[in-house]
Amino acid sequence: MNDKHTYCVIMAGGIGSRFWPMSRTAYPKQFLDFLGLGRTLIQQTFDRFLPLCPPENILVVTNAQYAPIVKQQLPQLRDDQVLTEPSRRNTAPCVAYANHVLLKRDPKARIVVAPSDHLVMKEQEFQDTIRLALKQAESSDCLVTLGIKPSRPDTGYGYIQFTDGTGTVDPRVKQVASFREKPDHATAVQFIESGDFLWNSGIFIWTLASIRKAFERHLPAMEQQFAAGAPYYGTPQEAAFIADTYTRCESISIDYGVMEKASNVNVVPSDFGWSDLGTWGSLYTHVPKDAQGNAAIGQQVRFYDCADNMVHVQDDRLVVLQGLEDCIVVSTKDALLVCRKHDEQKIKQFVADAAAEWGEKYV
Amino acid sequence: MNDKHTYCVIMAGGIGSRFWPMSRTAYPKQFLDFLGLGRTLIQQTFDRFLPLCPPENILVVTNAQYAPIVKQQLPQLRDDQVLTEPSRRNTAPCVAYANHVLLKRDPKARIVVAPSDHLVMKEQEFQDTIRLALKQAESSDCLVTLGIKPSRPDTGYGYIQFTDGTGTVDPRVKQVASFREKPDHATAVQFIESGDFLWNSGIFIWTLASIRKAFERHLPAMEQQFAAGAPYYGTPQEAAFIADTYTRCESISIDYGVMEKASNVNVVPSDFGWSDLGTWGSLYTHVPKDAQGNAAIGQQVRFYDCADNMVHVQDDRLVVLQGLEDCIVVSTKDALLVCRKHDEQKIKQFVADAAAEWGEKYV
Repeated sequence: MNDKHTYCVIMAGGIGSRFWPMSRTAYPKQFLDFLGLGRTLIQQTFDRFLPLCPPENILVVTNAQYAPIVKQQLPQLRDDQVLTEPSRRNTAPCVAYANHVLLKRDPKARIVVAPSDHLVMKEQEFQDTIRLALKQAESSDCLVTLGIKPSRPDTGYGYIQFTDGTGTVDPRVKQVASFREKPDHATAVQFIESGDFLWNSGIFIWTLASIRKAFERHLPAMEQQFAAGAPYYGTPQEAAFIADTYTRCESISIDYGVMEKASNVNVVPSDFGWSDLGTWGSLYTHVPKDAQGNAAIGQQVRFYDCADNMVHVQDDRLVVLQGLEDCIVVSTKDALLVCRKHDEQKIKQFVADAAAEWGEKYV
Repeated sequence: MNDKHTYCVIMAGGIGSRFWPMSRTAYPKQFLDFLGLGRTLIQQTFDRFLPLCPPENILVVTNAQYAPIVKQQLPQLRDDQVLTEPSRRNTAPCVAYANHVLLKRDPKARIVVAPSDHLVMKEQEFQDTIRLALKQAESSDCLVTLGIKPSRPDTGYGYIQFTDGTGTVDPRVKQVASFREKPDHATAVQFIESGDFLWNSGIFIWTLASIRKAFERHLPAMEQQFAAGAPYYGTPQEAAFIADTYTRCESISIDYGVMEKASNVNVVPSDFGWSDLGTWGSLYTHVPKDAQGNAAIGQQVRFYDCADNMVHVQDDRLVVLQGLEDCIVVSTKDALLVCRKHDEQKIKQFVADAAAEWGEKYV
């Protein structure tokens, strides 16, 4: 397979508010070195795709607000590899925008769409899985998604039900039977026990032709709105056209707008040490822990009589914790959060309250 | 009573390690604005004595290391009001040094000796009590100490047993029957129930004549060592003499070396909202709390599902706490401590460990 037609579209417009106070609206989590590895999440995502396509085939779609951060963290990107969104319209417009930019550049494009803020521990498995998915995408008019083999009845993920694929390029490629919203715990347990459910990774693989056909069928208005920009993509008028189009286009996710409606969706059951890093708890499951189950990201953290804590220290301050169990402790240069792990869904409320009382700079 | 013979000796050489990380060896708690009142503890102590004597009669005895901080925080002090100790020799040498400096300045001196890092909530009661004690000290050859009426069986304080004073200037002035070391809980409970025990405040009142007589009797060697400096006090040779004397003199507390051995000790049972601020827990009992018993010193602290916590934020960071009970949370620009209140005696160990691993700068 000739990689020169392979393109990666990295979606980097999220605000990551569940990772407050580490992740800020002005500097969200995809731009942070979350695991203290020396590379930010978006840099790791970029690195992950380098073996799959030429570097100039990697596009980043982000909010205009974050474009400078993207260019600073990925200096190898040319300006025309960074697509800026004037406002937040969820993922479908983001995909449509990238589609039409690529249509002008390479009608034969094979596209991998991926979030910028996910964690992948097994790079090789990831690349093998993507190549298999690309092979499937090439073989027929289909949309391919990656479904993560679930390790626990997590209620924080959407689920994909699959059946054995008929006429797929490889028995490892399955047919999607249905997409399911985030389930309650009992339902999640059933999903896991049934053995035919996967976590929805939000990573998609398709040819430009197939995804455009799907837009024409399921989001025809949006497809036309972005198709109308053909004269402007790659020209000085592109920004003005996109600014106008984003004020008019529907705000909808690619999952809800296209994937859940399409009948030609394949899924590759995957296991490459994935986390969407959606919550501190999900990060906790992926980082090293001491014998008492304490995870610390940060150089100078000491635990006494502590168990099962997730500690993240952004600055170089010394942190001494005693008698804490099952807590999240996050220290940044201007904020400190201590919160029970099982109450972390309340963090969004904390942020809202803090903003109301002390201003947006803390959001 | 003519206040011009009244002198206050503020002892400011402590290192306050139990208040780590707020209190540092390089900048101990007497130099911090512990309650966020806009004045540090030593400044508050100085202010407290201004109604009792002329400002030039207030001496501060501190370690040479802290002299610059003292002069910065109390700029109204002349150089000869700051006595610097070359090394830590506990409180008896500190008192002896001040005695002989004052002997040269005013043999009729009446002296109040007080720590620099205590909390006094009721200033007027404090001054009335000191005046009564000074009256007693003037009236006969005696040593007067202030005993705090105990509010709880605290095991963190030494206790003073008293009997009704015979021939004291006022029935409120009692006779000391015995000094008691920090008791265990059961003993402390007995003390409280008996009704004739007080907390040892470490605040002493005496005439220069009486305290020198007590030194001659109970610490004669030390008295002679400091008496030998008569030619040097107030001269450029004072520092050299003190440096030499401190290497030779005994390291012993004024309580153990003099008060506990003396038979002519009176005590004034006192109630002026006192705390020695010996521990975070003792600070907690003296600061305002919300309905859930959370005390916060710092402007931007938010509690959710929290109870009975003592929070102290030195910098202006935002602090959000959820699900914490009975904890101490201290945030400084370079350190964070979260510790169970009832385990706070372990803090000294934390500091030692931190120093061993990351260096003295954190001590």
